[in-house]
Amino acid sequence: MDQHDPRIADLGFARVDVDRAARTGDPEVVYGAGKTPDQVVAILRALHDKHPERAVLATRLAPEALDIVGAALPDATVDLVARAVTLGPLPTARGTVAVVSAGTSDAPVAAEAALTVAVHGAAVDRIDDVGVAGLHRLLGVRDRLAAADCLIVVAGMEGALPSVVGGLTGVPIVAVPTSVGYGASLGGIAALLAMLNSCAPGVTVVNIDNGYGAGVHAARVARQSVPR
Amino acid sequence: MDQHDPRIADLGFARVDVDRAARTGDPEVVYGAGKTPDQVVAILRALHDKHPERAVLATRLAPEALDIVGAALPDATVDLVARAVTLGPLPTARGTVAVVSAGTSDAPVAAEAALTVAVHGAAVDRIDDVGVAGLHRLLGVRDRLAAADCLIVVAGMEGALPSVVGGLTGVPIVAVPTSVGYGASLGGIAALLAMLNSCAPGVTVVNIDNGYGAGVHAARVARQSVPR
Amino acid sequence: MDQHDPRIADLGFARVDVDRAARTGDPEVVYGAGKTPDQVVAILRALHDKHPERAVLATRLAPEALDIVGAALPDATVDLVARAVTLGPLPTARGTVAVVSAGTSDAPVAAEAALTVAVHGAAVDRIDDVGVAGLHRLLGVRDRLAAADCLIVVAGMEGALPSVVGGLTGVPIVAVPTSVGYGASLGGIAALLAMLNSCAPGVTVVNIDNGYGAGVHAARVARQSVPR
Amino acid sequence: MDQHDPRIADLGFARVDVDRAARTGDPEVVYGAGKTPDQVVAILRALHDKHPERAVLATRLAPEALDIVGAALPDATVDLVARAVTLGPLPTARGTVAVVSAGTSDAPVAAEAALTVAVHGAAVDRIDDVGVAGLHRLLGVRDRLAAADCLIVVAGMEGALPSVVGGLTGVPIVAVPTSVGYGASLGGIAALLAMLNSCAPGVTVVNIDNGYGAGVHAARVARQSVPR
Amino acid sequence: MDQHDPRIADLGFARVDVDRAARTGDPEVVYGAGKTPDQVVAILRALHDKHPERAVLATRLAPEALDIVGAALPDATVDLVARAVTLGPLPTARGTVAVVSAGTSDAPVAAEAALTVAVHGAAVDRIDDVGVAGLHRLLGVRDRLAAADCLIVVAGMEGALPSVVGGLTGVPIVAVPTSVGYGASLGGIAALLAMLNSCAPGVTVVNIDNGYGAGVHAARVARQSVPR
Amino acid sequence: MDQHDPRIADLGFARVDVDRAARTGDPEVVYGAGKTPDQVVAILRALHDKHPERAVLATRLAPEALDIVGAALPDATVDLVARAVTLGPLPTARGTVAVVSAGTSDAPVAAEAALTVAVHGAAVDRIDDVGVAGLHRLLGVRDRLAAADCLIVVAGMEGALPSVVGGLTGVPIVAVPTSVGYGASLGGIAALLAMLNSCAPGVTVVNIDNGYGAGVHAARVARQSVPR
Amino acid sequence: MDQHDPRIADLGFARVDVDRAARTGDPEVVYGAGKTPDQVVAILRALHDKHPERAVLATRLAPEALDIVGAALPDATVDLVARAVTLGPLPTARGTVAVVSAGTSDAPVAAEAALTVAVHGAAVDRIDDVGVAGLHRLLGVRDRLAAADCLIVVAGMEGALPSVVGGLTGVPIVAVPTSVGYGASLGGIAALLAMLNSCAPGVTVVNIDNGYGAGVHAARVARQSVPR
Amino acid sequence: MDQHDPRIADLGFARVDVDRAARTGDPEVVYGAGKTPDQVVAILRALHDKHPERAVLATRLAPEALDIVGAALPDATVDLVARAVTLGPLPTARGTVAVVSAGTSDAPVAAEAALTVAVHGAAVDRIDDVGVAGLHRLLGVRDRLAAADCLIVVAGMEGALPSVVGGLTGVPIVAVPTSVGYGASLGGIAALLAMLNSCAPGVTVVNIDNGYGAGVHAARVARQSVPR
Repeated sequence: MDQHDPRIADLGFARVDVDRAARTGDPEVVYGAGKTPDQVVAILRALHDKHPERAVLATRLAPEALDIVGAALPDATVDLVARAVTLGPLPTARGTVAVVSAGTSDAPVAAEAALTVAVHGAAVDRIDDVGVAGLHRLLGVRDRLAAADCLIVVAGMEGALPSVVGGLTGVPIVAVPTSVGYGASLGGIAALLAMLNSCAPGVTVVNIDNGYGAGVHAARVARQSVPR
Repeated sequence: MDQHDPRIADLGFARVDVDRAARTGDPEVVYGAGKTPDQVVAILRALHDKHPERAVLATRLAPEALDIVGAALPDATVDLVARAVTLGPLPTARGTVAVVSAGTSDAPVAAEAALTVAVHGAAVDRIDDVGVAGLHRLLGVRDRLAAADCLIVVAGMEGALPSVVGGLTGVPIVAVPTSVGYGASLGGIAALLAMLNSCAPGVTVVNIDNGYGAGVHAARVARQSVPR
Repeated sequence: MDQHDPRIADLGFARVDVDRAARTGDPEVVYGAGKTPDQVVAILRALHDKHPERAVLATRLAPEALDIVGAALPDATVDLVARAVTLGPLPTARGTVAVVSAGTSDAPVAAEAALTVAVHGAAVDRIDDVGVAGLHRLLGVRDRLAAADCLIVVAGMEGALPSVVGGLTGVPIVAVPTSVGYGASLGGIAALLAMLNSCAPGVTVVNIDNGYGAGVHAARVARQSVPR
Repeated sequence: MDQHDPRIADLGFARVDVDRAARTGDPEVVYGAGKTPDQVVAILRALHDKHPERAVLATRLAPEALDIVGAALPDATVDLVARAVTLGPLPTARGTVAVVSAGTSDAPVAAEAALTVAVHGAAVDRIDDVGVAGLHRLLGVRDRLAAADCLIVVAGMEGALPSVVGGLTGVPIVAVPTSVGYGASLGGIAALLAMLNSCAPGVTVVNIDNGYGAGVHAARVARQSVPR
Repeated sequence: MDQHDPRIADLGFARVDVDRAARTGDPEVVYGAGKTPDQVVAILRALHDKHPERAVLATRLAPEALDIVGAALPDATVDLVARAVTLGPLPTARGTVAVVSAGTSDAPVAAEAALTVAVHGAAVDRIDDVGVAGLHRLLGVRDRLAAADCLIVVAGMEGALPSVVGGLTGVPIVAVPTSVGYGASLGGIAALLAMLNSCAPGVTVVNIDNGYGAGVHAARVARQSVPR
Repeated sequence: MDQHDPRIADLGFARVDVDRAARTGDPEVVYGAGKTPDQVVAILRALHDKHPERAVLATRLAPEALDIVGAALPDATVDLVARAVTLGPLPTARGTVAVVSAGTSDAPVAAEAALTVAVHGAAVDRIDDVGVAGLHRLLGVRDRLAAADCLIVVAGMEGALPSVVGGLTGVPIVAVPTSVGYGASLGGIAALLAMLNSCAPGVTVVNIDNGYGAGVHAARVARQSVPR
Repeated sequence: MDQHDPRIADLGFARVDVDRAARTGDPEVVYGAGKTPDQVVAILRALHDKHPERAVLATRLAPEALDIVGAALPDATVDLVARAVTLGPLPTARGTVAVVSAGTSDAPVAAEAALTVAVHGAAVDRIDDVGVAGLHRLLGVRDRLAAADCLIVVAGMEGALPSVVGGLTGVPIVAVPTSVGYGASLGGIAALLAMLNSCAPGVTVVNIDNGYGAGVHAARVARQSVPR
Repeated sequence: MDQHDPRIADLGFARVDVDRAARTGDPEVVYGAGKTPDQVVAILRALHDKHPERAVLATRLAPEALDIVGAALPDATVDLVARAVTLGPLPTARGTVAVVSAGTSDAPVAAEAALTVAVHGAAVDRIDDVGVAGLHRLLGVRDRLAAADCLIVVAGMEGALPSVVGGLTGVPIVAVPTSVGYGASLGGIAALLAMLNSCAPGVTVVNIDNGYGAGVHAARVARQSVPR
């Protein structure tokens, strides 16, 4: 492989794939876990230099990393709930993704999903605190569910929300189990298994707490949907 | 221990505890799995001889065992769906247990629960096929849920039904996960974990497919409840 | 859904369901894990304002949260062992729940269960340190077990206590596995599995360390029981 | 609930939800596992009578059930590989789903996915035997991958195919783990975990061997996509 | 290794270690699972020829293997419950092992343990059907428990019996979990975990259904104990 | 139960069973995990007051607890490696237990086992660093293995040592898996499973890191063995 | 991809990669599980036609498949123990692989490994029945271990053999866990975990019962080794 | 065992096997986890004194241990990424091992593998950041893969890289799963299972994060390979 392959930016500690947009149409993203704040800053800069016309995203940043990255990159936008940073202008939104969450504790995952959707070019409708133990809250938003091009449904504990939502609408659903819970929730495994076994057809699932992955899938679906 | 301890009936292959009613108020029950039909017949006879005035119950009988036991005990009542047999008169019912199930495949477990409730002295209200993917079915029976003294909620796959029911009513709930499902349902573990992590307060859980255990608990609760 | 739906209190960071009492008859409860002390205080105040005539409960508070909440809400009652706080007057008790625990280390879970029972309107009889390795302690309290309307049995390690209690009495039992143990206890999974497989009929189970869930179920059963 | 609720067809052994199309836009489907061939025939007939203008689908039929159902319903189309039956005319296809599979043993799951897509109103492009151990086969079909509106990627064993496909294209992907494998494949758990942890963004996952669920999601996405 | 090593008997399909007695003092044993009846007969003959003065044991024989081995070796003793065969005279017993079991379904494992103890040179006291849900049965045999040199305690389901026995006596205990149970018993894992976490000190554990292993350990302990 | 039951010492925070010696012949032991140093001191004092003539043992003490307990009880003996404390004179030893360990990291568990053996009245022979990857070390101590009345074999990682020791001698063996390892050792589960599946007959097993439980069993065996 | 790609043989039910030898130097192999005997015959014929000068291998054939394939391909060699078939001449052997197995029940896996080695071009030395519970058998073959270019070590149950062999020699080792065992062997998971945690350095592991995979790796190593 | 056995160095806290080189040809290695820096220094000195002519290796050192060991042993070489230290001259390299890694986060494991290879006498070719989601990077280095005598392939998350590499070349492969990932990666179990189920033949696997074990195996293979 040529050392000067333009599809790769060599930062010394990492050889960054700066070609993904060409292959997949998606923006570049930095997974911040396990990287130092300085490494995150360096990668964000390299990606932004390569693609200044569109936002790059860094996820899974610890609180202190959010501070350092925000200070080092004054043009960046810091989302404290999503624990994420964007640098560069958000794209124009095509289509809409509704991000539906069960409880207050699921907020960080829902926020990561929502920000990812925006960075990947779709509009977001946030619908929070509609857990299944108080159905009136969910039944009150049926119109907003039906108006979306794709749904991201975020829940921890028993992970029942996607099944109930899936019975109310035929919009494509991506379910995100969260690690909210204790004991036999097994760090989110209980919610993950529940979602994989949903009796509502067409529910697809991503990894525990993976708001980012759900956001990428849902934004792709929304972007390519016929406008209503 | 005295060989003639009246609390024990020695059948050779088993020493049967015929004293449980005295200690717990519940009828005698034969767990049929792993026993030959002849053993089931012998134990049922021994228990019936000891307590002719009330029903004894045998559960978990294979189809051929149901045939053999039914033929050997013409006075017995065979429940093919519940895979169970009763011998002796059912007690007068005090209180009501509603047995709620999610899907058609859950019928054997729901039937075992219902029969157990009846044998243990409470009335039964069966509410079937009210899975969460079609909420209108469940919302249509809210009055029957509220009228019960205890609820048994039976579901396989993602096991979401107890959480939704638990958000609709304050009646005590016993959830029964079933082994209905495949792949990541792990033989009912997914439903079991979901029910243990229910966000609805006060949901208690029994072993997978354990309609019997749920029935005993629910009947005890119903029997001692203040009549409405 | 109307922004002014009286069933929901919108605190900004959370939209609180203040309607549960109407649906289920139970008091409002705040699950404190994952919430800041300030959020707990705000939710307790909102619920207390809505329902000043009865106690609200906050559980799973870390030691420092107990301090802050206690200081911010001088009328609140802090239970250091249960790691919980109540605000508002306890209801008059109907019926009795005996809270039975195996060992000293199970005390926090037993205390959470006991406080939950009291907040939900039943009387409590605490029976501690009656683990199965010293049967004489348990056999000495058989009368108190039989006098209760519902039993909560708390145990970690091998989780055998509910089976032994269940053989001594016909009172409805809710078993609570605790995370007390090490190695192959798997954080309470060993006790949970044991309780789900209890050979004593009618034992129902809640999540590991879930004293709250057991308390809600048991209090409902006790409240509706015919007085003795 | 009214016994004559037109949204429910009561067959005695089951109360069938015949209203799903109205709520979700999807056709009715019978999950055949755990049902007798006669029950499958009865439900198919009831659904077909209600909706004669569009296909109904029965999945997970054992070989002998396929024979019986095919004989009882001469107008039905039997798919031996997919172990499924359709009754009624397939809808006109909108959009295209490419069903990509790794190995010969994955054929039943891929066939179930493909038939489900067709019944749910999208065109299918089958791409088989493109496992990652022979990359030239996959690289040879990049144009067909890019031309689809949604991809279903089916693989057992190590489940690596979705990650590799996901690096080649930005089309939305649904990954289906299969139970093909032995030993540490744990009945498909290894492939399921791999797909949930895919390093390629936007891969969503369904239950092991759940070609049906993947087909529903993918067809919904394809149907609503802007024609190319 | 010399082909004529007298410590090894070469049967073609197996090279049998005929030296174990010299190293460990224990008799030779054939593990029958996975071997054809003819192989079991051949190995039993080879071991019996080598050590005609003491019994050899074959365990884990299927019902048809028991028939064939019994017919081929008329001098052998067949134990249908233990699914085992002995050939050659039992040794004189030194010390006593009490084999305690919880329920009727545990009989095969208890029988295997008891026969193993006898073949390994200790006397056996069988105490059956003393499960913890009926404590009076167990409390009635305290003298027999205390009189043994070692206890084997056999139980399935929740596996609580060793903990209760361990609280009643200081005799060394070997606990044997059995695969009796269903659902969350996980084939005996629940009982195994419970026994490993016993709150009674000094309980040791063997593999699920491993009556043989428990018998070897207990017999060794009993044989070397000071006579009482 | 009488508040003045002499078999129980009520310390307020705990009701201590001071009767175990009468029932089982073993000394009293305090399990220190989850208790404050002050609680450990109080329980040790209560037990020592009750039984000044023999040692009481406290295990699983954190480093700071060892300091505090040692300072508060100047007559106590602190074992830093075993993380344990004894108070009162050790009993005269009858019989010998060899404590065999595989590697340096297993030392704390081996030390806990050895101290427990001494407190329970048997002599100890420590044999360390004889892991199976250097067989010459183990083969060099065969005589010491054969001279013991019971063996405790401690190993982490793959847990192979008990199988190899079990092939060398017929002395009763208690295997102790340790949590030494990483990744697929799963916190000691790998070693635990290996020991439960030992191909050497008569190996019994205790919980991960449970040197105490192994020590109790082994000491009981050694104490009752015929002197050699 | 061109339908006439010479690297792929299209058999209708499968598109066979006939190019692997060019990429990897290894012969073609048919994994028989899940394929009908007719499919195996067809694929063997296609591969043999493409590469008549060297052997092709079919593994994991059921007994009846072995019969049918043997009858359909009279030139094939059937290995009943390995449950495998070869067609075409074996290559000249370079280097030697010793296949070491613990017990008689491991023979099918050891035979599959040995046949795979031969088909992949290395000589085989079989060393059977050298389990760790009888070390003298293993110590007697140290010279043969040291003389090999690569070792395949096959064991079930506790899987200890690779650790012991790894302490005796510096020859590269591939460990193969087998599904031999019961209960807590978990179908070979116990042996697999043990081997992954081996304290002997340089032990690598393949899937449970995967004699084929071990054979490929070991033959590659042996073929490229400097002759001794 | 003689206290003066020259094969063992007794350091008081450990009895070190200094004979491994004689048995296996490999250098001595200190596993640093669970040892104090002083213990590591003492063992390294003892091994270096015994074998001053070749390097000894210490792995798994925490950052502060790296500082202390580096200061105490000025002649040592500290590798901060590999978290390891060597003391003494590296051997002359025979053969080449390519260490291939998927992502930046896998660097510590890849570095440990590479250093181990060098200490064990083979040359290293590092190929980093060639994860399967960007295949062009991997396809660009096919020549380097083919030129190696053995490949170590390091990957976390879904662990797909070894399968893809194994389809490109016939060089022996050792796969190393890493603990990089979250949620359903289960600390590296997902990658481990994927690698064990690789559809590419001949892939062998070591424990999660076990770069050292992979390095030992690969170096042995490379050292004995015919030079190209």
